[in-house]
Amino acid sequence: MKILFYMPLTDAATWLHDLARALPDADLREWQPGDRAPADFAVVWRPPREMLAGRDTLRAIFNLGAGVDAILALEREQPGTLPRNVPLIRLEDTGMGAQMAEYVTHAVLRYLRCFDEYDAQQRERRWKALEPHPRATFTVGVLGLGVLGTQVARTLASFGLPVRGYSRGAKQIDGVTTFAGEARFDAFLDGAKVLVNLLPYTPDTAGVLNARTFARLARGAYLVNVARGAHLVDTDLLAALASGQLAAATLDVFHEEPLPADHPFWREPRITITPHTSALTLREESVAQVASKIGALLRGEPVSGVVRAERGY
Amino acid sequence: MKILFYMPLTDAATWLHDLARALPDADLREWQPGDRAPADFAVVWRPPREMLAGRDTLRAIFNLGAGVDAILALEREQPGTLPRNVPLIRLEDTGMGAQMAEYVTHAVLRYLRCFDEYDAQQRERRWKALEPHPRATFTVGVLGLGVLGTQVARTLASFGLPVRGYSRGAKQIDGVTTFAGEARFDAFLDGAKVLVNLLPYTPDTAGVLNARTFARLARGAYLVNVARGAHLVDTDLLAALASGQLAAATLDVFHEEPLPADHPFWREPRITITPHTSALTLREESVAQVASKIGALLRGEPVSGVVRAERGY
Repeated sequence: MKILFYMPLTDAATWLHDLARALPDADLREWQPGDRAPADFAVVWRPPREMLAGRDTLRAIFNLGAGVDAILALEREQPGTLPRNVPLIRLEDTGMGAQMAEYVTHAVLRYLRCFDEYDAQQRERRWKALEPHPRATFTVGVLGLGVLGTQVARTLASFGLPVRGYSRGAKQIDGVTTFAGEARFDAFLDGAKVLVNLLPYTPDTAGVLNARTFARLARGAYLVNVARGAHLVDTDLLAALASGQLAAATLDVFHEEPLPADHPFWREPRITITPHTSALTLREESVAQVASKIGALLRGEPVSGVVRAERGY
Repeated sequence: MKILFYMPLTDAATWLHDLARALPDADLREWQPGDRAPADFAVVWRPPREMLAGRDTLRAIFNLGAGVDAILALEREQPGTLPRNVPLIRLEDTGMGAQMAEYVTHAVLRYLRCFDEYDAQQRERRWKALEPHPRATFTVGVLGLGVLGTQVARTLASFGLPVRGYSRGAKQIDGVTTFAGEARFDAFLDGAKVLVNLLPYTPDTAGVLNARTFARLARGAYLVNVARGAHLVDTDLLAALASGQLAAATLDVFHEEPLPADHPFWREPRITITPHTSALTLREESVAQVASKIGALLRGEPVSGVVRAERGY
């Protein structure tokens, strides 16, 4: 069994070592430009077009990390790139849900409890209690209720915050008011105080964080974007901050990454920037899942996480 | 039924209004210096000595806020101040537990996920992923397992963090490793990465956050003090930060409040200062509890929260 591995900006040797330990019968190699030798499985993150094109004999492609948008974009931009009839398989939560819950909870509590304002006061050596936001109206709307969005929504609800969730198909989550389908999108947004974006990135969701969306939120609302930079219309965010419709934003993802040094987001004190680190792919958990799914496929058993390309996730 | 009310730095009229609505038969007044007229109940926060001295006909004193240390100190400093045989009654969690859980969770996640370091990078427009702390060894020790400490410990455990709890008497909390009694104090501290203080303030616990305590924690540990300023030896904290034994601290309470403008804590960037706002007394919840406890006392029923003065809480 031959396995091709590709993951940019990582320590490939350690991944190959761990995969070899989990799959002792496998013949593993890191893909290099020009490698057209046969393989049974591909284990990838943001692969280049040449790696996958024409590989019709693959039995499956595993996507490391969260989001298959980069792979599906290869096909959309140049139809026929992805081998036909080869399943593209997402890993289920490989420890990313817990990290995402930490990241978003931190951002929401920071806004709820005015910690930025207290930091500013500390710089001036000012001792002054601030009027807290009433928890009962600090409604958080979570856009996208996949594995990550669901865990984030549940965690926020455990703090007694009013939490709404939006997804394309209907979902039920204890303690969360859910809204399904485009017709309910505005009702989901109306008056929310925090908007957290965890949608999959597809042509349908591109630019969903725009002026129209922001206008439906409560005045002085907060934005947390941890999905994809292209979900956000950058100029609409800057305008909403300037008008006061949005009070602040926490962004982990950007149209271009690293965020260019001359991008206006760097200069806006109400925007908090992290370098796409809200949820890192955890090697141990990912390797275990890839090994387990390959085992199931070899035994002819069904596996979960198969991407429906027409849906985009 | 006559009720005396005293709470400094607050809108007494609103409290009296709400108490009157909850206790329609009561004759309510705000205590003023010189008021020695009879009363059946006192509802107080940090009362002056003259208010309580000699009031032997009170049926109970209710303590608003968390901690009875200020009232017990009146008696300790001048024995005979507090009327004998008048129960001093604490309110149980009046919404403070939820606030405390928010505050401490925010501080712990901020340290766990290196958000201070990311803020510093942002100021330099630097895009660089930082090695996260491994969650499995980011052990949080919660000092004090009363209502607030228990809720904080439970909340942190729900994030998958290893959580320890310390109290004088034995307690059991799901998902938390508990340690009871002085003989187990060092075992509780050993190697912890975050120390959260929620102890009651008594002569026994004064200065518990000192150099010896810090030395037992993991190198580069974090301190969160949300109990009383006098739990902390200020110079020991500064020395531990200077040596690197502690990496940072979040302080909501201080020996002197407001923290004096020339205090060195203001100038230490690794110390985060909030003006004793980690958990505010919530009027609605407090009024409801006072009314319910007065009702029980009038009916001759037992009430919970009676302070044991010899224990100090």
